[in-house]
Amino acid sequence: MNGAESLVRTLVGGGVNVCFTNPGTSEMHFVAALDKVDGMRCVLALFEGVVTGAADGYWRLTDRPAATLLHLGPGLGNGLANLHNAKKANSGIVNIVGEHATYHIKYDAPLTADIAGIAQPMSHWVKTSTHANQVAADGAEAIAVASTPPGQIATLILPGDTAWHEGSGAALVPAPPARPKVAEEVVKNAADVLTPGQGAMLLLSGEGLRERGLALAGAIAHKTGARILAQGSNARLQRGAGRVPVERVPFPVLQAVDVLKPVQRLILVGAKPPVAFFAYPDRPSILTQEGCAIHTLTSLADDTIDALERLADAVGAKITEAPVQQPSRPEMPSGGLNPDKIAAILGNLIPENAIVVDESVTTGRGFYPLTAGAPPHDWLQNMGGSIGYGMPVAVGAAVACPDRKVLALVGDGSGMYTVQALWTMAREGLDVTVAIWANRTYQILKGEFANVGAGNPGHKARDMLDIDRPDLDWVALAKGMGVPASRAEDCETLSKQLQKGMATAGPYLLEVVL
Amino acid sequence: MNGAESLVRTLVGGGVNVCFTNPGTSEMHFVAALDKVDGMRCVLALFEGVVTGAADGYWRLTDRPAATLLHLGPGLGNGLANLHNAKKANSGIVNIVGEHATYHIKYDAPLTADIAGIAQPMSHWVKTSTHANQVAADGAEAIAVASTPPGQIATLILPGDTAWHEGSGAALVPAPPARPKVAEEVVKNAADVLTPGQGAMLLLSGEGLRERGLALAGAIAHKTGARILAQGSNARLQRGAGRVPVERVPFPVLQAVDVLKPVQRLILVGAKPPVAFFAYPDRPSILTQEGCAIHTLTSLADDTIDALERLADAVGAKITEAPVQQPSRPEMPSGGLNPDKIAAILGNLIPENAIVVDESVTTGRGFYPLTAGAPPHDWLQNMGGSIGYGMPVAVGAAVACPDRKVLALVGDGSGMYTVQALWTMAREGLDVTVAIWANRTYQILKGEFANVGAGNPGHKARDMLDIDRPDLDWVALAKGMGVPASRAEDCETLSKQLQKGMATAGPYLLEVVL
Repeated sequence: MNGAESLVRTLVGGGVNVCFTNPGTSEMHFVAALDKVDGMRCVLALFEGVVTGAADGYWRLTDRPAATLLHLGPGLGNGLANLHNAKKANSGIVNIVGEHATYHIKYDAPLTADIAGIAQPMSHWVKTSTHANQVAADGAEAIAVASTPPGQIATLILPGDTAWHEGSGAALVPAPPARPKVAEEVVKNAADVLTPGQGAMLLLSGEGLRERGLALAGAIAHKTGARILAQGSNARLQRGAGRVPVERVPFPVLQAVDVLKPVQRLILVGAKPPVAFFAYPDRPSILTQEGCAIHTLTSLADDTIDALERLADAVGAKITEAPVQQPSRPEMPSGGLNPDKIAAILGNLIPENAIVVDESVTTGRGFYPLTAGAPPHDWLQNMGGSIGYGMPVAVGAAVACPDRKVLALVGDGSGMYTVQALWTMAREGLDVTVAIWANRTYQILKGEFANVGAGNPGHKARDMLDIDRPDLDWVALAKGMGVPASRAEDCETLSKQLQKGMATAGPYLLEVVL
Repeated sequence: MNGAESLVRTLVGGGVNVCFTNPGTSEMHFVAALDKVDGMRCVLALFEGVVTGAADGYWRLTDRPAATLLHLGPGLGNGLANLHNAKKANSGIVNIVGEHATYHIKYDAPLTADIAGIAQPMSHWVKTSTHANQVAADGAEAIAVASTPPGQIATLILPGDTAWHEGSGAALVPAPPARPKVAEEVVKNAADVLTPGQGAMLLLSGEGLRERGLALAGAIAHKTGARILAQGSNARLQRGAGRVPVERVPFPVLQAVDVLKPVQRLILVGAKPPVAFFAYPDRPSILTQEGCAIHTLTSLADDTIDALERLADAVGAKITEAPVQQPSRPEMPSGGLNPDKIAAILGNLIPENAIVVDESVTTGRGFYPLTAGAPPHDWLQNMGGSIGYGMPVAVGAAVACPDRKVLALVGDGSGMYTVQALWTMAREGLDVTVAIWANRTYQILKGEFANVGAGNPGHKARDMLDIDRPDLDWVALAKGMGVPASRAEDCETLSKQLQKGMATAGPYLLEVVL
């Protein structure tokens, strides 16, 4: 078998069963191998940002890497923004990037570029295969790296001749290392810091926000009187009725400072010390008060569930005593739409076991509280701040979990970066309902314009912040990519159409005009 | 004035009067400065690949750099593929990339990334401003670098605090260096190599393909009996009735080898030694015969017009004697569409002084001969091979030349990478007619699959090469972004609709179903 086939067999053998692709000439042998090897599902996207975002979403729901297949430096470049988001989410991904044949690179043909250089800023590991008989071993290493907790970006560059020459056969992929358990003194220190609970807070991310992590943290907080809070953005947060509810650090700096003001002792549980998303001339970068002591229970890579179990034991907390969210549905609103009414409609209609991919930006600031009492669901957020993550991550989530409804909540500005995702949803019949918040503006930037001290935008500045003239017609865009769609301008219509989306076994798009 | 304003004033003073933008929080002071400084036209795009491609197109038509405004590492990442194409086209561009405030970078907020690392592979020059009072001087240097022949990519990274703190006032931009003139012995050597003309060829690119360069090369060939040929891809080629006609190196390797087989002495005039676009297992990388002597008259940076004038003198060639293309329009075809009939329709309808941006890939292989006798027009090609260049370059060309009709010929696969360009065409009322060749497949890859020796694609491979299921509806996509559009499935309709596009003062899209 050739190098490409040895790689595909290594991937399948290593549990990588999905490949999101946008291939070109240099990847044709990899594509050809798909028909020779069983067990690999290939999902085509028409733009590479969809490819990498989908791989991010796939990891978040499965804790297993998908592969991507990208075409040389520019193809990788197009995927870079969502690789950035995936890297910040610590999603494990195996990127396969085609390259010219080794002997052809020196001729500087049009597509020649420094692929490793492009990969480096958004990868934890980059390697270029040099011989066909090394491709399988390199692929196995890439899978191992990608699977190493908490998840990493591994980029394997595959010159054409290493794909088409005789390879080695499949390589065995070592089992990923277990998450390290933190030392006893770390748990003991956390227990000491927590007692008394007054002024103490557990700041959670990663496994701490899965159902069991939250239950343990909730029990500890209940027992000690400490507070729990989630990071501002999280890759996956399990919430809804019957689970321990948790608020998040707010995005606006002054609100975040306010929430963290009473905290004298902060214990990080897979979370990072809270800092502002951006710097502003007259606001702090660090969101905690000066003098707040910051302790680390676990990093994102550590075995957080184990650490929380031991901490619960140390403080005598019982998981059964953690206060959980009661089921509740807000009152169904009527009439004209605004963000709060949309939140209430979502709170009414999120189905059990849904996966909510939230890229609502300004429209969604108030979604969280009104959806807290919905049936249990997962809530996914943008970890890298590069907009255009929502629909691609929804693609990956839907491929990962074909039996769950995915609800992608996306601002119109955000949606346009990776609008091509709709086509992949249509082709694969993915069970995604997309709601586009059509406020016809980069609304967040209007606030940020003032926040950075730039005053009020003048005529030319407003032109760079509004995305009207012409208004985007999302129903037409969806139709153009084969996704059924409709438009809602009031609560009654939105509610009816969202129910229609939930009842549709496949993609559906709502343009929600604000 | 603050650093951002000092930069905008420096740009305007340095002749940079257009900025293609997709800004975020870290660029708000730059955006605010636009309302304080006259003389800068800002053009918003909804995706950064449109931004960078537009700047490429703008340079090609004006030989002056535009600025881009991009949002941190991921925004630059989204623009990277078309920066790659622009770099390979040697288009001068001044990228302004926002960055976190200098003191905020260390906190590793979500959008923090190695911006310089991302910029490096696609830039000739990268600099991060460190103080507000250096921003203007850094901007002036960026303009000088971008304007240095043959044109370069300069990337200036602008931390938020260098934008908002008090700056230095505008900096003066030095005049770009003149193109170097080649030494007399280089011209003399070329003259010797050319005589006798039998077996000699001038391979042209850059200025050699502008009207005057071609006239001189045509005269030299006419006098000496040498042949002239253009590079396979060229940033801008001036052709049509009354100009010296020139063929190009074909894309398929075996055809290219055939064309170059009789060449014993090749003189490069702004061109690179001809090599294959990709490597294939059983085909050569170098397209010239072994033993073909390759001489360089000019590099792309040199003063090619001067060198050709001196070479013409040396061989006694008179520009008035160069044989030029006679006006001719092919017979108008009828009935069902195929690539040759489309070529004939284009040959009939390309208007005088049009700018043709060609990203037709397989559909356009035969466009060139049948359009040769159309009225004088410019022909622009993809220089870096990263598809998705066509519509963005058309945006930049239309901004650069509001009095000329731009005709963007784009494959459906290519068009999807940067489909957001349609919105910018609509917003700015750009005079672009877009023809989408809707063959519902990455047709080129079907040929390449065989060329690389992968045999015939199986079921799963074909799924990665076809972009049907569902078919894209380009009329709906255009409508979704405010561009009027129609669909043609036969010659009569295409001809009528293309004429309608030519008569429309603004964007118009044709979906041409093959």
